[in-house]
Formats: sequence, structure tokens, C-alpha cells
Amino acid sequence: MAAFRVEVRVMPRASLLDPQGQAVEHALHALGFAEVGTVRVGKHLVLQLIAASRDEATARARSMCDRLLANPVTEDFEVAVESA
Amino acid sequence: MAAFRVEVRVMPRASLLDPQGQAVEHALHALGFAEVGTVRVGKHLVLQLIAASRDEATARARSMCDRLLANPVTEDFEVAVESA
Repeated sequence: MAAFRVEVRVMPRASLLDPQGQAVEHALHALGFAEVGTVRVGKHLVLQLIAASRDEATARARSMCDRLLANPVTEDFEVAVESA
Repeated sequence: MAAFRVEVRVMPRASLLDPQGQAVEHALHALGFAEVGTVRVGKHLVLQLIAASRDEATARARSMCDRLLANPVTEDFEVAVESA
């Protein structure tokens, strides 16, 4: 068994409205950052994980996304695994 | 002027408690993911930006983090800029 560091990025689907991103966009404009266009806001998670292999760590992390970390209807996720 | 895609990662400082991360950790354990250790949760933002150069885009994005996107007391941020 080995230790892995898993980075998970969860973002709202491109085809869906992102109210949090719109709020940030408007706030940046109000602060004078007129050069900003679309803003999208998602989550970034860093997990410490014990697994037999990198492949197993990736599979487990994807399973965590399916079951808890991402909303399958509204969000997409990416998983990156490296040795801890 | 050129268009850039800016990715900003905002994470709670390593030395601070992360209640949201602890909540996710406990929820993963309750779902049977016993192999998970520490979890930390931050934000991931993707911004479209117009700037004269990559350096200017980076500087403006860092300024946005200082003024709005990150809490300087509790959070660290990283900025990555690529041509859009």
C-alpha cells in the first residue's frame, strides 16, 4: 500500500448557468476589472489516500466523485493522482 | 490586446482548520471510503480576460485575488494563465 495525493476539480457544466460565477464577474466589474469576461466557479479538493496502486487510487477517487463530491447532473470533475 | 484564460486556485492555508474539508472527510468515511485521510476543500475559478500580454494578465489576476477572490488571512492562491 502507498500514499497518494489526489487533486479533484469539480466545475459547473459548461452548458449550465453558474450564478456564483456571475456574482463574482459582477463584483470584479464593480471593482474596476472591466477586462474580465465570463467567470466560472467550482471546487478544488485535495485528498490524502492510501491505495495499492495509482490506478486503484484514481478509481477510488472517481468513485468518491460519483457518490459524494460532484453532482452528476450539474457538474463535471477531473481527478489527478500523484505519489504523496 | 489578446484573450487569456486564467485559472485560479484558492485553498485554505495549511496551518488553519478546514471545517468544510473535515465534513467531506467524515462523509467519505461514512460512505465506506476508509482509506481517505485529510481532505481540504478550496475554490477553483476560471476567468476569461483581455490583456496586452500574459504578464499583464497574470498581474491583473493576482490583483483580483488580493482584492476579492481570496481571503489574505485564511487562504492562499495560485494563478495560471494561458492563451484563450
